[in-house]
Amino acid sequence: MKLSQLFTKTSKASPAEAESVNAQLLARAGFVYQQMAGVYNYLPLGLRVLKKIQHIVREEMDALGGQELLMPTLTSEADYKKTGRDTIDVLFRTEGHSKSALVLNPSHEEVVTPLVQKFVFSYNDLPTAVYQIQTKFRNEPRAKSGLLRGREFMMKDMYSFHTSEDDLNTFYERALERYHKVYTRLGLGDLTVVASASGGMFTKDISHEFQTLCPIGEDTIYLCEKCNKAVNQEISMDHARCPQCGASPMVEKKSIEVGNIFKLKTKYTSAFDFKYKDETGITHPVIMGCYGIGISRLMGALVEVFHDDKGMIWPESVAPFKVHLMALGNDESARAKTDELYETLTRAGVEALYDDRVKASTGEKLSDADLIGIPYRVIVSPKTLAENAVEIKKRDEKEARLASFAHCVSELM
Amino acid sequence: MKLSQLFTKTSKASPAEAESVNAQLLARAGFVYQQMAGVYNYLPLGLRVLKKIQHIVREEMDALGGQELLMPTLTSEADYKKTGRDTIDVLFRTEGHSKSALVLNPSHEEVVTPLVQKFVFSYNDLPTAVYQIQTKFRNEPRAKSGLLRGREFMMKDMYSFHTSEDDLNTFYERALERYHKVYTRLGLGDLTVVASASGGMFTKDISHEFQTLCPIGEDTIYLCEKCNKAVNQEISMDHARCPQCGASPMVEKKSIEVGNIFKLKTKYTSAFDFKYKDETGITHPVIMGCYGIGISRLMGALVEVFHDDKGMIWPESVAPFKVHLMALGNDESARAKTDELYETLTRAGVEALYDDRVKASTGEKLSDADLIGIPYRVIVSPKTLAENAVEIKKRDEKEARLASFAHCVSELM
Repeated sequence: MKLSQLFTKTSKASPAEAESVNAQLLARAGFVYQQMAGVYNYLPLGLRVLKKIQHIVREEMDALGGQELLMPTLTSEADYKKTGRDTIDVLFRTEGHSKSALVLNPSHEEVVTPLVQKFVFSYNDLPTAVYQIQTKFRNEPRAKSGLLRGREFMMKDMYSFHTSEDDLNTFYERALERYHKVYTRLGLGDLTVVASASGGMFTKDISHEFQTLCPIGEDTIYLCEKCNKAVNQEISMDHARCPQCGASPMVEKKSIEVGNIFKLKTKYTSAFDFKYKDETGITHPVIMGCYGIGISRLMGALVEVFHDDKGMIWPESVAPFKVHLMALGNDESARAKTDELYETLTRAGVEALYDDRVKASTGEKLSDADLIGIPYRVIVSPKTLAENAVEIKKRDEKEARLASFAHCVSELM
Repeated sequence: MKLSQLFTKTSKASPAEAESVNAQLLARAGFVYQQMAGVYNYLPLGLRVLKKIQHIVREEMDALGGQELLMPTLTSEADYKKTGRDTIDVLFRTEGHSKSALVLNPSHEEVVTPLVQKFVFSYNDLPTAVYQIQTKFRNEPRAKSGLLRGREFMMKDMYSFHTSEDDLNTFYERALERYHKVYTRLGLGDLTVVASASGGMFTKDISHEFQTLCPIGEDTIYLCEKCNKAVNQEISMDHARCPQCGASPMVEKKSIEVGNIFKLKTKYTSAFDFKYKDETGITHPVIMGCYGIGISRLMGALVEVFHDDKGMIWPESVAPFKVHLMALGNDESARAKTDELYETLTRAGVEALYDDRVKASTGEKLSDADLIGIPYRVIVSPKTLAENAVEIKKRDEKEARLASFAHCVSELM
């Protein structure tokens, strides 16, 4: 894509309302635009990142055997009365036809349980797992952390249904593994640990959270440096000894919750009387699990983890483009060579953002490239052309180096 | 995909609440599940169709130079007061933090206008066009036509911004052409005409609707059979003479509105005081257009247009799969050959739905294939194997024919 055709512009100043680093950098680089606290517009560069995160999550959920569907935002409050969740305080409410009381779903247990129940009758139909990537609504009291705490946000939520707790446990372990793969592919693998936590608004049982270590995180966990398991401070202030392996003491860390999984068991299936028939015709309650990943929150978390004082540093797997290309020096031959390089890369399927602005200064082009944070910066200038070369610099490295045109193309393919 | 792994099931009976053919067939085949009137769950087969419609629309909007973004559902009512749209009767409303009055966007003029204004200052920044594929909310009084009239529905909405009405007109004509391409790719080209209509909730000026001729359509248009242009009955009951070409009389037709485009001009840009500076530094109001396509409505329209008494008949461009594969006769060698064919097709990138159910009868398999409506049905049975062949039948043709294994694969690639 040519930068001159992008309608967004970068900005040196952060919007007044942006209090967190992720909100500041994403807004300054034109990735997002805040509609109100906790509600964002995703602009072209930001939407590209979101789609790449979605793609990774979708691949891993498909590999787990999840079937993708899409559930609605609007649901009758009556369904929430059945589960007791009509009293949770973050619900957005609206009125439908004939003044009917509706809820904007904060998650989809009240939708998915009766939905799957319509199709699942016997042990032959189980286990099954469905997921969606969809917008959630939660009227959070505080929403000052940019994309880390949204009132309207994008989430992947998966729900699994089983004949027994054993079968749920097996699937749950497989889901844990797939979640680790997601964070590894996002570049967060080494920083992301599993923490025991409360069930929050979903269940009274313990849940497991995926926590990415980060000093600005809203969560506090106790991490065992021996077994790498953690406990969320909300369920235990005692960190003298790791409950998993017995090592002591655990270390207090700040972290961002980037996923959570729950063994819901029969909490929701009982509320909807969702049962299955076993081999002998006897009915049993269906056993259920749920598995969330905050897609838009992950975009914020990636910025909090990967940035420096100049801007964002996107992992290649989710960067809006792989290459940030520019000609410097307002030189005709440099511009022609850059045009050619852009064409070559684009034809080869390498995603390049070409800063083709005529009026932008060298300083503006360089600082925009640092702010936007695309992994490879490639510069063509009279100086590099004199050496029959282009300059390549990775965003996360200090030094640039020269490479021939052909080398540059083959390295970026 | 193997049918045995799909959690949905077909049903012989329509749900009681399904009054329209599209709601009945889509529900019976397990493509959708109604949450409440006008609000649907899109199940795996239905979501595949939606994604293919999205893909076609996205390609054409990208070709038009549209930049994709994603705007939110929640917006302050204050923005609707600025445009006067706070009084339209289909608004869903909710309350945010500190009892603030919020609207669930029925379209996005009140969001996109101040958003683009943040980045566009001068004639150098224009024209520009942005679009999204996103969920809209309209509390329609009647929602009894399945996917044709949703209270929560998926829409592509594009907004363009210009320095002059001439420039808007040029873009508008290009958008018209791209819209025709969309309907042609969906198989609706011959049935879809452009009708002059009112501006509805968007503007007081005339708009243009894309109307797909269909006896159950909610709209009535007068079509000129000479120039193929139409007029919506809502703006003129006079159909003695075509206002475009003068031919007479025009023919009354029922139709489904599958897209509409509006020259909004300065209605919204004035409300937000969105101006640009020309070459001489003088400011002028920005001129605006908007362009909608109902993605989920198109899924319903396709079913209304393409079905018979046995089920749906999907155009190949949006069918959930290209091939519906089955072994008949519970024969081991037929099953093995079908397994092999499924593997071959899948490896070749041909999307196949394989009815591998062991307990389903021949009758069930055949009637499910007709109901689901995938373009090619391929049957392997002891009878076809005796001729060293498979049976191929297109959903929209009466006669099946035999083809060798190799021929079958090459035809379907």
